[in-house]
Amino acid sequence: MAHGGGGGADLMACKQEEEVENKAAWLLGIKTLKIQPYHLPPLGPLDVKVRIKALGICGSDVHHFKVKIHFAILLYWLLLATDDVLNVIREYCFHDHKTMRCASFVVKKPMVIGHECAGIIEEVGSEVKSLAVGDRVALEPGISCRRCNLCKQGRYNLCPEMKFFGSPPTNGSLANKVVHPANLCFKLPDNVSLEEGAMCEPLSVGVHACRRAQIGPETNVLIMGAGPIGLITLLASRAFGAPRVVIVDVDDRRLSIAKNLGADEIIHVSTNIQDVDEEVIKIQNAMGSGIDVSFDCVGYNKTMTTALNATQSGGKVCLIGLALTEMTVPLTPSAAREVDVIGIFRYRNTWPLCIEFLKTGKIDVKPLITHRFRFSQEEVEQAFETSAGGGSAIKVMFSL
Amino acid sequence: MAHGGGGGADLMACKQEEEVENKAAWLLGIKTLKIQPYHLPPLGPLDVKVRIKALGICGSDVHHFKVKIHFAILLYWLLLATDDVLNVIREYCFHDHKTMRCASFVVKKPMVIGHECAGIIEEVGSEVKSLAVGDRVALEPGISCRRCNLCKQGRYNLCPEMKFFGSPPTNGSLANKVVHPANLCFKLPDNVSLEEGAMCEPLSVGVHACRRAQIGPETNVLIMGAGPIGLITLLASRAFGAPRVVIVDVDDRRLSIAKNLGADEIIHVSTNIQDVDEEVIKIQNAMGSGIDVSFDCVGYNKTMTTALNATQSGGKVCLIGLALTEMTVPLTPSAAREVDVIGIFRYRNTWPLCIEFLKTGKIDVKPLITHRFRFSQEEVEQAFETSAGGGSAIKVMFSL
Amino acid sequence: MAHGGGGGADLMACKQEEEVENKAAWLLGIKTLKIQPYHLPPLGPLDVKVRIKALGICGSDVHHFKVKIHFAILLYWLLLATDDVLNVIREYCFHDHKTMRCASFVVKKPMVIGHECAGIIEEVGSEVKSLAVGDRVALEPGISCRRCNLCKQGRYNLCPEMKFFGSPPTNGSLANKVVHPANLCFKLPDNVSLEEGAMCEPLSVGVHACRRAQIGPETNVLIMGAGPIGLITLLASRAFGAPRVVIVDVDDRRLSIAKNLGADEIIHVSTNIQDVDEEVIKIQNAMGSGIDVSFDCVGYNKTMTTALNATQSGGKVCLIGLALTEMTVPLTPSAAREVDVIGIFRYRNTWPLCIEFLKTGKIDVKPLITHRFRFSQEEVEQAFETSAGGGSAIKVMFSL
Amino acid sequence: MAHGGGGGADLMACKQEEEVENKAAWLLGIKTLKIQPYHLPPLGPLDVKVRIKALGICGSDVHHFKVKIHFAILLYWLLLATDDVLNVIREYCFHDHKTMRCASFVVKKPMVIGHECAGIIEEVGSEVKSLAVGDRVALEPGISCRRCNLCKQGRYNLCPEMKFFGSPPTNGSLANKVVHPANLCFKLPDNVSLEEGAMCEPLSVGVHACRRAQIGPETNVLIMGAGPIGLITLLASRAFGAPRVVIVDVDDRRLSIAKNLGADEIIHVSTNIQDVDEEVIKIQNAMGSGIDVSFDCVGYNKTMTTALNATQSGGKVCLIGLALTEMTVPLTPSAAREVDVIGIFRYRNTWPLCIEFLKTGKIDVKPLITHRFRFSQEEVEQAFETSAGGGSAIKVMFSL
Repeated sequence: MAHGGGGGADLMACKQEEEVENKAAWLLGIKTLKIQPYHLPPLGPLDVKVRIKALGICGSDVHHFKVKIHFAILLYWLLLATDDVLNVIREYCFHDHKTMRCASFVVKKPMVIGHECAGIIEEVGSEVKSLAVGDRVALEPGISCRRCNLCKQGRYNLCPEMKFFGSPPTNGSLANKVVHPANLCFKLPDNVSLEEGAMCEPLSVGVHACRRAQIGPETNVLIMGAGPIGLITLLASRAFGAPRVVIVDVDDRRLSIAKNLGADEIIHVSTNIQDVDEEVIKIQNAMGSGIDVSFDCVGYNKTMTTALNATQSGGKVCLIGLALTEMTVPLTPSAAREVDVIGIFRYRNTWPLCIEFLKTGKIDVKPLITHRFRFSQEEVEQAFETSAGGGSAIKVMFSL
Repeated sequence: MAHGGGGGADLMACKQEEEVENKAAWLLGIKTLKIQPYHLPPLGPLDVKVRIKALGICGSDVHHFKVKIHFAILLYWLLLATDDVLNVIREYCFHDHKTMRCASFVVKKPMVIGHECAGIIEEVGSEVKSLAVGDRVALEPGISCRRCNLCKQGRYNLCPEMKFFGSPPTNGSLANKVVHPANLCFKLPDNVSLEEGAMCEPLSVGVHACRRAQIGPETNVLIMGAGPIGLITLLASRAFGAPRVVIVDVDDRRLSIAKNLGADEIIHVSTNIQDVDEEVIKIQNAMGSGIDVSFDCVGYNKTMTTALNATQSGGKVCLIGLALTEMTVPLTPSAAREVDVIGIFRYRNTWPLCIEFLKTGKIDVKPLITHRFRFSQEEVEQAFETSAGGGSAIKVMFSL
Repeated sequence: MAHGGGGGADLMACKQEEEVENKAAWLLGIKTLKIQPYHLPPLGPLDVKVRIKALGICGSDVHHFKVKIHFAILLYWLLLATDDVLNVIREYCFHDHKTMRCASFVVKKPMVIGHECAGIIEEVGSEVKSLAVGDRVALEPGISCRRCNLCKQGRYNLCPEMKFFGSPPTNGSLANKVVHPANLCFKLPDNVSLEEGAMCEPLSVGVHACRRAQIGPETNVLIMGAGPIGLITLLASRAFGAPRVVIVDVDDRRLSIAKNLGADEIIHVSTNIQDVDEEVIKIQNAMGSGIDVSFDCVGYNKTMTTALNATQSGGKVCLIGLALTEMTVPLTPSAAREVDVIGIFRYRNTWPLCIEFLKTGKIDVKPLITHRFRFSQEEVEQAFETSAGGGSAIKVMFSL
Repeated sequence: MAHGGGGGADLMACKQEEEVENKAAWLLGIKTLKIQPYHLPPLGPLDVKVRIKALGICGSDVHHFKVKIHFAILLYWLLLATDDVLNVIREYCFHDHKTMRCASFVVKKPMVIGHECAGIIEEVGSEVKSLAVGDRVALEPGISCRRCNLCKQGRYNLCPEMKFFGSPPTNGSLANKVVHPANLCFKLPDNVSLEEGAMCEPLSVGVHACRRAQIGPETNVLIMGAGPIGLITLLASRAFGAPRVVIVDVDDRRLSIAKNLGADEIIHVSTNIQDVDEEVIKIQNAMGSGIDVSFDCVGYNKTMTTALNATQSGGKVCLIGLALTEMTVPLTPSAAREVDVIGIFRYRNTWPLCIEFLKTGKIDVKPLITHRFRFSQEEVEQAFETSAGGGSAIKVMFSL
């Protein structure tokens, strides 16, 4: 077995000890997270073992989500729901391939959660050449099969056999250590911290959306929703060169954060669908010229209606937020103006670009990290409560 | 009558006489079409004068339409509604830029209708080099401004200043003669009839949709709806090389026509939204492999839901049919599989390709022409009634 | 170890015996091919063992090649040169990343040659689900690393760690049996023979070129060279819908084959560079309208000059033939008409489409198979002599 | 006749006087430029009359050019050659559609030169709505036919009937006033000067090249040549988000300008083709990671060879410089790595983006303007001598 560097009996002893002690945050049931031992799989020749140092959770999605789901059985549990849990739900829904109705969701067996992470290489597989022990890396959480048609065509994010940290039945990475393929671990430059490295994951969603929507220096961008995904999409749009970004939300506090992060215009809107026409005019005036791409980072009838109607002929609406399964929206008038609706699922090949953005300062994710917790039973619970609390939390980060 | 140039007094007399006598079918109000004199604009240096010989109307859209519009005021009138009228409605809707609600539609002033046409060049402008008197041509009906950003970018079908035959306030082409820009008149080869030339217009919708959806020899195609647009899309998909086309409708007669036109599989479905899941499975089984592109040629909640759910990850749904303005559809699950929704408005640069398809026999539109009428007051009324009757009519054609 | 089907001691015995006896055609040195035992690697869980039944070699490339290479040391040896050998040479050249000068080429160690093949599954790895013992399959010869940036982006044909049958140091497939990843073995329909299956490899070059050049129903195609690659590209262009294909060569016999295979026009040209201007006019007249894409399937100064000058503004020249390393061509005038030069290396994701073309009869490769040999020491030598002979051979096929 | 605004007899008198006095710089023969009266065409309904205030000429191209052309008859004359003259030559060459041999070039009749310009609207045609008298505008110099296939497809820069300022037989814009279509005059924001407006023309070449080469935040760029076009391409690449730009030249002074304009690395190379291999390694090391796009802004065998060999598999080489007509370059090895060669001709739809870049400061063209002259007979001659002198001039600008 290949160790990258130093040696001796002490290290061996220490290493074995550590392996025995590897702990992870297990989701055992509704609202039940426990830190318990986590036995890692063996290290393959192209794998690395990473000591996780930073891991983020995403809480405000929860806040959005719980408002919309009307099934009482879900409500209580969703107080603790996070990105990871949403992934669980999403996974389940895809499993039956057509709806996202989640009422019958149950956690079938315990699973380690967490997927936005970075750490330090502790061991490298026998054939790994690109990484060495001690390297600081950000982890792309999904392992695709690499052999299906979608993988071979370069759309591996759609691989039906994807194994993704914290998406059932694959364990996540809120653990002291994980084993992961070396080609999904990306070395961080000295001026990018491990916390920033962990932020590559949410940032990747925005980057992938900007790529699919072909954002560039002549794309005027509208963003519906100033939650974490909206803010990330704002940062990514800017980094892709969007000359003008207008962002819309119902919450002034969020809008003010968006303004600080570089939005050209912020627009406060209501939750009332009757106001769409008036708000579209307000948005279009704020943009000043035609809106080329709208990102709906929420996924309500009203946000999507606004996006479809506001976007100019020949533009695109990119649907990132997935609040509603069934949407009632004026799809035909926009289709008849050749406004295409672009779907987004996770990301592909985004880590190198995210790291480039962080390294050069084109994107600064640090203002998004609002809370920090340690990896203890007590603080893990606190962290998820904070994240789910719907308060001021944007990104809650663990230090391990 | 073809003048090359020369002439004599007889010819001159004849010509003036003809011009005096130019007649067209005027829409004067609801259900009121009259053949009346039509004074043509002067011939510009880059224009041609065309004697119209064949013009098609499209009736089954009507049949679909009237079922769906619930405004009583529209129902009676829509018994006579045609493509041209739908265009009027559509135009109106775009005018207020967001909805397609049409209840308040009124015909504001008399207008010549008709836009699917072909004829013979009777006179050419002083700078026209590509065409000569006597040439048989098919006419592309929309004149774009050629100077706006969309025109300059090659998306002239989206030009906001488009002047389109029979879309208010632009007169149509159901007339003895029209004046039209030479660059929108396309010479027909000897083996393509004028009637087939007139069919370039509906065919263009299918061709444009196939281009936007990037149909090719590895694109498995699902078509929702076997009405005229569905059938045209079937023919176009085949001509673009689609290896396998499955078509779906509620009407066995239409399905049997689709089968005769080359569909690999035809599937009878219900109008009941509850059956979607079951029908999707049936459709997918009929395809045998993944569905890459679905064309919704209807535009109902059920057809769009079926299309979104049936299409495989990374595929496209192309929305052509515009039955409903507001749709209630499961847009997020398909977006989360990166199934994009592609909108279609008319067409651009399609005539040369349509003519190529007709010339080489890759597409045979003749089976679609089910009824023929002459250009008399009596037959014009009959023709529209036939077209609107919802019976066996696919394409009703005038001979002028 | 996983067997697909039946069993018993007899099969086991038979199987072991077969494995002992596996033979392959080894290239031992210049002009020295010997059939000798070939010990296979172990079967991985995602691999299959295939009994090769048909394998093609490509001889006329040799004929072209030997004319152009002026190094005496190569000439004699090249009498036996084949695609496989050319691959060796090509590989060597890429190794030093910039030139294709091949004078110093030496066969460093014995290697099994051959890469265009099809066969029958004899054994499947423990995790293989898509294939079963007895399946008839065509083999895609290159195994990419699946983990580098190019692989993850879907351009795996450019993978720098590609292991390709018969490209040093990877053994080829002119053998009784080979072990290969299941995802690179494609099941043949009943109506596609194993010989046709083996033809998927050369056909893939044409299919990949048509994809990269975006051939469709409105692409007029010029093909320079009616050798095997030119003929394959002709068939592929037709299958992609090219409305008009003109093909050019110096050899009337080849041109007549091209005509039989469906070229619209064949044009005999000289080898004299002085004739380019005149020939371009002849070619453009034969096409009748603008040439959208030219394929240079040869790679001489004259063929490339003709292609660049003949292609209309905004078109593409696709360079497939690699006869010359350094070319002297009028690259700037065509660049200033935005005629792009598209490069081609092998293929990616082509087998399913090739099989589709063969199954539906859109492409018939049988006329290209001009000679057949058995897999014996004597016939192998004969086959390569035939292939290199420059006579009437297009595709020489082994039956194993 | 339509005036935008104010009026009175004085203005009328003044205006008529001005019109009588309109003067332009006429190219009368080799090395003979005279300021003489220029009678403008009538103002069409969609035209504007512009009082030219700033116009740039481009001299260092000349310096490059004269070294390479071996025809003695051209050498003397080319001492004065400028962009405009090169356009003449280019135009001539396209006229015979295949070579760029220019030995027989003669100025057939006097012509106004100049095409990089900006000015103030003095009169607007009767149907012009987007512009008003007094507006400061930059002029796009080419008027396409708007009706041919290339125009309708949005590739109007390739229009065969283009009328382009200063390309024979169309008069240029080094004049007090010109008449031009309103849709080709782009309003300048207050913070963009008329000189900067005139720079939109050369900047457009870089912008169009970046668009065609798809430069974005993950495209590492190599630029061959730090002359005016190389520098412009550097600025454009940066504005499109290129993370790393390496620029190469034979001249340290130019390289130092490039460094000041934001190149990450500058590399001094020789004119000796033998050094290519070594220099490619140096360039690749300077880049640090793979080169995605190389711009050859010169067009010599050596620059193109370097670009082709340095670019990584799957990348692009964009050929902008047109120094040589026939190039001897290793085209096949790069084609076999799927490095495509992208051609560039002028630009399309670039003015709005250029103005956006200037307005926001993403691009600062002011450092490129090295010399200024007034519009007098004496200074015009001086200006062209300065521009042609090969000294420190980058951009020579007239104030009118």
